[in-house]
Amino acid sequence: MRVLLTNDDGLGSPGLLALARALRPVADVLVVAPEHERSAASHAITLHKPLRAVPAALGDTGLPAWATSGTPADCVLLAVLDLLGRPPDVVVSGINVGANLGMDLIYSGTVSGAVEATLSGIAAIAVSVASFTDIQWGPAAAFSAHLAQEVHRHGLPKDTFLNVNVPNLPAKEIRGVEITRQSARRYVNRLEKRADPRGRDYYWLTGSAEAGSADPGTDAAAVAEGRISVTPLRLDMTYEELRTSLRSWDLRWPLR
Amino acid sequence: MRVLLTNDDGLGSPGLLALARALRPVADVLVVAPEHERSAASHAITLHKPLRAVPAALGDTGLPAWATSGTPADCVLLAVLDLLGRPPDVVVSGINVGANLGMDLIYSGTVSGAVEATLSGIAAIAVSVASFTDIQWGPAAAFSAHLAQEVHRHGLPKDTFLNVNVPNLPAKEIRGVEITRQSARRYVNRLEKRADPRGRDYYWLTGSAEAGSADPGTDAAAVAEGRISVTPLRLDMTYEELRTSLRSWDLRWPLR
Repeated sequence: MRVLLTNDDGLGSPGLLALARALRPVADVLVVAPEHERSAASHAITLHKPLRAVPAALGDTGLPAWATSGTPADCVLLAVLDLLGRPPDVVVSGINVGANLGMDLIYSGTVSGAVEATLSGIAAIAVSVASFTDIQWGPAAAFSAHLAQEVHRHGLPKDTFLNVNVPNLPAKEIRGVEITRQSARRYVNRLEKRADPRGRDYYWLTGSAEAGSADPGTDAAAVAEGRISVTPLRLDMTYEELRTSLRSWDLRWPLR
Repeated sequence: MRVLLTNDDGLGSPGLLALARALRPVADVLVVAPEHERSAASHAITLHKPLRAVPAALGDTGLPAWATSGTPADCVLLAVLDLLGRPPDVVVSGINVGANLGMDLIYSGTVSGAVEATLSGIAAIAVSVASFTDIQWGPAAAFSAHLAQEVHRHGLPKDTFLNVNVPNLPAKEIRGVEITRQSARRYVNRLEKRADPRGRDYYWLTGSAEAGSADPGTDAAAVAEGRISVTPLRLDMTYEELRTSLRSWDLRWPLR
């Protein structure tokens, strides 16, 4: 099994190193990651300027690794279209610092690495740990290595991938695995308005996860209760129910 | 009705101007758009550097307009959280130069403007014309103005929005409106590898729409046949069928 790793925290992230070390005993591991942090890059791809990819070292692993000037989606494209020679069997994107739950997924560079792999027809997993500090990499790394093998064994339907969130707990305190659905939880954005030294306004965009408890069965609820959340996602966003009700709207051409 | 316009081609795009002129007779129009083109910005939001928003002119319309240093998603956040005072009733993102069909949606800055509005609880439409050259703005602008009123009248379910693609034809040659689903059509990415003046490799990412005909009932098929495509989309990407089959996988914790 050949596994490509990427992430959005950059090649220097301990989460990427932990993932590589956990997968190494069970797979040929290849790494193509951004040279610096690309969080909230979402699914941006770089069309308007050149991309660079240079051979790099992932810690002391000696694994084949490249650092790129691009986003996680760019990394997957560079890997698949040029760097690796032939496509990997599985792409694992992560381990991300901070959960990727509910409606936050839309902003996630980590998820976009898995999406780009999915678009290229490669089975993919996005993995995140639900904390920004004092991160326990072990459980997420071990579970990812196991899940990559399961994905390789079973395959995934076309245009689908898995989003994994691991609670930030010691291995013994994690209370199992739950197959979840995406919650409606959203990121609450805030703006901080400031004045620059010349007195002109500028803004910092910031925010935090929505407060309150999530619905049972969702990604956010599973993680809050100490379980590993595995959410199957599809790229097709069509909302069939709304298709039906739109038929009663006045949608015609010509307009008069 | 208060309508916020944004786009990813920038404040100077004739598509934005055409949209503003079509909406003006039926709505209070407000404009917050990137100062330059942000195509393929996808749902990137700007967390790592300051954002700017300055009052600007949209052609000779005299409409309230701001140019920002951010992406379409940033524009919507700036508009809703600060610039407009109170949220608009409807957000229209576009009119984009080039179709946003099938799996291409994931890359689309235009769609991300509508997504961010949806996350903020505002009814939203993304609008694109299916051509990069010799664009006929009239039909897309007129249909968008009509659809914005329909959206305001009927409302949209939580966490859903509409994606509209208009064939690049004179008004008389457009063959009606179809309520479609998202096709599996994808963008075929290619890399061009070049050497810089110092002999070091770099890449240009490029690509083109997948060849071949799309399935009937899809966005791509409708546009190819000269109809306006209206696709209802939801933010929830959960793939329920896969949830069921994952239950037969070996997904457990602890691993042994």
